[in-house]
Amino acid sequence: MSEKNYTVAVVGATGAVGTRMIQMLEESTLPIKQIRLFATYRSAGKILKFKGQDVVVEETTEDSFDGIDIALFSAGGGVSAKFAPYAVKAGAVVVDNTSHFRMNADVPLVVPEVNAHALDAHNGIIACPNCSTIQMMVALEPVRKQYGLDRIIVSTYQAVSGAGAKAIAEAEREIAEVINDKVDPKDVHADILPAGGDKKHYPIAFNALAQIDVFTDNDYTYEEMKMTNETKKIMEDDSIKVSATCVRVPVILAHSESVYIETKELAPIDGVKAAISAFPGAILEDDPSQQIYPQAVNAAGRRETFVGRIRRDLDAEKGIHMWVVSDNLLKGAAWNSVQIAESLHERDLVHPTADLKFELK
Amino acid sequence: MSEKNYTVAVVGATGAVGTRMIQMLEESTLPIKQIRLFATYRSAGKILKFKGQDVVVEETTEDSFDGIDIALFSAGGGVSAKFAPYAVKAGAVVVDNTSHFRMNADVPLVVPEVNAHALDAHNGIIACPNCSTIQMMVALEPVRKQYGLDRIIVSTYQAVSGAGAKAIAEAEREIAEVINDKVDPKDVHADILPAGGDKKHYPIAFNALAQIDVFTDNDYTYEEMKMTNETKKIMEDDSIKVSATCVRVPVILAHSESVYIETKELAPIDGVKAAISAFPGAILEDDPSQQIYPQAVNAAGRRETFVGRIRRDLDAEKGIHMWVVSDNLLKGAAWNSVQIAESLHERDLVHPTADLKFELK
Repeated sequence: MSEKNYTVAVVGATGAVGTRMIQMLEESTLPIKQIRLFATYRSAGKILKFKGQDVVVEETTEDSFDGIDIALFSAGGGVSAKFAPYAVKAGAVVVDNTSHFRMNADVPLVVPEVNAHALDAHNGIIACPNCSTIQMMVALEPVRKQYGLDRIIVSTYQAVSGAGAKAIAEAEREIAEVINDKVDPKDVHADILPAGGDKKHYPIAFNALAQIDVFTDNDYTYEEMKMTNETKKIMEDDSIKVSATCVRVPVILAHSESVYIETKELAPIDGVKAAISAFPGAILEDDPSQQIYPQAVNAAGRRETFVGRIRRDLDAEKGIHMWVVSDNLLKGAAWNSVQIAESLHERDLVHPTADLKFELK
Repeated sequence: MSEKNYTVAVVGATGAVGTRMIQMLEESTLPIKQIRLFATYRSAGKILKFKGQDVVVEETTEDSFDGIDIALFSAGGGVSAKFAPYAVKAGAVVVDNTSHFRMNADVPLVVPEVNAHALDAHNGIIACPNCSTIQMMVALEPVRKQYGLDRIIVSTYQAVSGAGAKAIAEAEREIAEVINDKVDPKDVHADILPAGGDKKHYPIAFNALAQIDVFTDNDYTYEEMKMTNETKKIMEDDSIKVSATCVRVPVILAHSESVYIETKELAPIDGVKAAISAFPGAILEDDPSQQIYPQAVNAAGRRETFVGRIRRDLDAEKGIHMWVVSDNLLKGAAWNSVQIAESLHERDLVHPTADLKFELK
C-alpha cells in the first residue's frame, strides 16, 4: 500500500450523491490531506463542512484540477464528459458516478467486491456502475462464482433519490399535497419525474412509474439497458442474459429489487444463502419464520447490500428468486465511488496517466 | 336472460371493498329490488346510502339471509366460512371475495371475461379471485388463447387498500408523520401491515414490504401462492408455471405488476398487443415514444385492467415482459364480484341450490 496523502475533489458536491460522497470520505480509510469541492457557478461560494472544517465550494472549470490526485464526479453525464478528461490531463484519477464513460472499453466499471482487479488496467477514469446494477452485483457475484449464472430477470422498486435532490423535493411536495391538502394523486403537478430530460412528467406520489431514464429504440429504458449491459461488463461475461423492468416507487432512500436468476449448475438454496452470507458487502436477512427480510427503511444509511426471500422457483429446477435492498446513494453511488478510491490507493494505482485516451472538449 | 328482480345483500358493507360493492351495484345492470347491508354488531345501526336512499346496516347472523337472492361477501375469510353456507341454505347465491372457498373443488373461481362458463357448475358459492390474480388474468388470457402460456414470473407493486380500511388509515398516518413531523421512516410505529394476523408489523411509509399475507412452509407467502394456484384454476391448466413475488408499496389504490411470460408458440409483439387490445376489460396503454404506459394513479377508480410496456425479452425467444395495472378494489374485488353477479343473472343461474355442499358451522 502506498504512503501517499491525497488531495481529493468532489465534483457535484452539493447534490444528493455529492453530499454523501463527502460523508463517505470523512469516514474513509483513504489518507486525505486536502478536500476540494466543486459545483456549478450557482453553488460556488457555498460553504460545506469536511471533518468539521469549512470548505468553500468552487465552480468547476477546465483549470480546476491542478494538484488533485483523485476526483469523484457526480454532477451529471454532461459535466463528466466535459471535465473528467481535463482532470485526467491534470494528473488526477477520476472516479465517475455518471453513466457517460461506463461502457467505454478504456474505462473499468467497478464494484470493488466483485471486480477490483479491473482497476489495474485503468487509463485515468474509472466508472461507478448504475445504482440498480451495483446492489444486484453484490447479491449475485457470490452465486455466480459458485454455481455460474445463466440468466437474470429483475424488477426494481427504485427510490426517488436516484433522480437527485430536486426529485426528492418534488416527491415530498407531491406527497404533502395528497396527505395534507387532499389533492387527488392523479391531479398533482410534476416537473421532473420520471426523467428530467423527457417530454412528459408524472406524479410519483402514491404511484409506481414504469419508466426510469428515457426510452431506447427497443422499448426498454436506458435504466433497464444499463442493468443489462453493465452486468455483462462487470461480470466479464457477455453470455449472461439480463432483462430488467425498472420502476420508480414513492420511497426516498434505498432501492429494492425482485431478482430471478437461473444458475448454470443446480444451486442448493442453503448453498446460495451461505455464499451470499460470506460475501463482503452482502448481508443475509432471510428468515420467513421470523418475518426477517430486507426493507428499504432499514437499508437507508447503511453501506451493505441486504439479501433475503431466497427461494427456489416453483417449477424451474435451476431458478431462484430473491429480494435485494441497498441504499442507492451509498453503495449505489457515493460509497461505491469512495470504495473504488480506497481500492485504487490499496493497489497503488493513484497516479497521473501518461497517455490521454479521452477527448478534451 | 331472466326477468327476475333481486334482493341483494352485501356482507362487510362498511369495509374498503364493501363500500365499493355498493357503488358498483348502484351502477350495475343487475335488476335490484332491494339491497340489504350487513356488517359486525359494531357497525350495525350505521346508515349507508344506496341510490340516494338510506339503508340501515344490520348485524350478520345465521338467520340474516331469508329472502336474499344474491349475497356478496367481503368481510374476511372467517365470516365467509361461517355465514356463506347459511346464505346458500337460505336460497341465496353467494359471491365470495375472500380466499376461503377459492380452491374448493365445488366452487367456481371466476373472472367473467376469462371463465364465465365455470359459473354454470356452481353449487351456491362462487369465489372472486385474489386482486393480484384477477388483473393478471385479464392481461394474460388473450395471450394464452392465441399463443398458449408456458410460464409466468410476476413481481407485484400492491396498494395498501388491499389490506383494508385500517391499513389505509395506518399508511396515511405513517406518511403524515414522516412528511409533517420528520419522523425517520424506520421509527414509524406500525400495527397492521404487512399482515394483520402476523406477529411483527413494519412501516409501509417510504418502504417496500416483500410480504403480503403470512408465509407458507415453502418460504412463499400465501399471497404469492394464491397467484400460482388461482391462475391454474382459472385458466384450467395445471401445467402453467407461476412463481410470484408479492410486494406492498406506499400506494393507496391500484396494484401494478411486472409480468414476465413465456408463450408456447412464438408470439409477435404486435399480435400480443392486438390480442390484449381486443379483449374485454383490458385497455392497451403502450407507446414508449409518447411515454404512454399504465400508472396506478390513472387506474384508480376505473374498472378496466391497463397493460403496457409490452416488449420481447432480450434473450428468450418466447419471453415477453409487460406492466399490468388495475384498481385493486374495483376489478380486483368489488367490480369483479358485481360482474359475477351480472353474469349469474345473464346465465339465469340465480336460484336456490338444492344440495348443500358446504358445512354449517
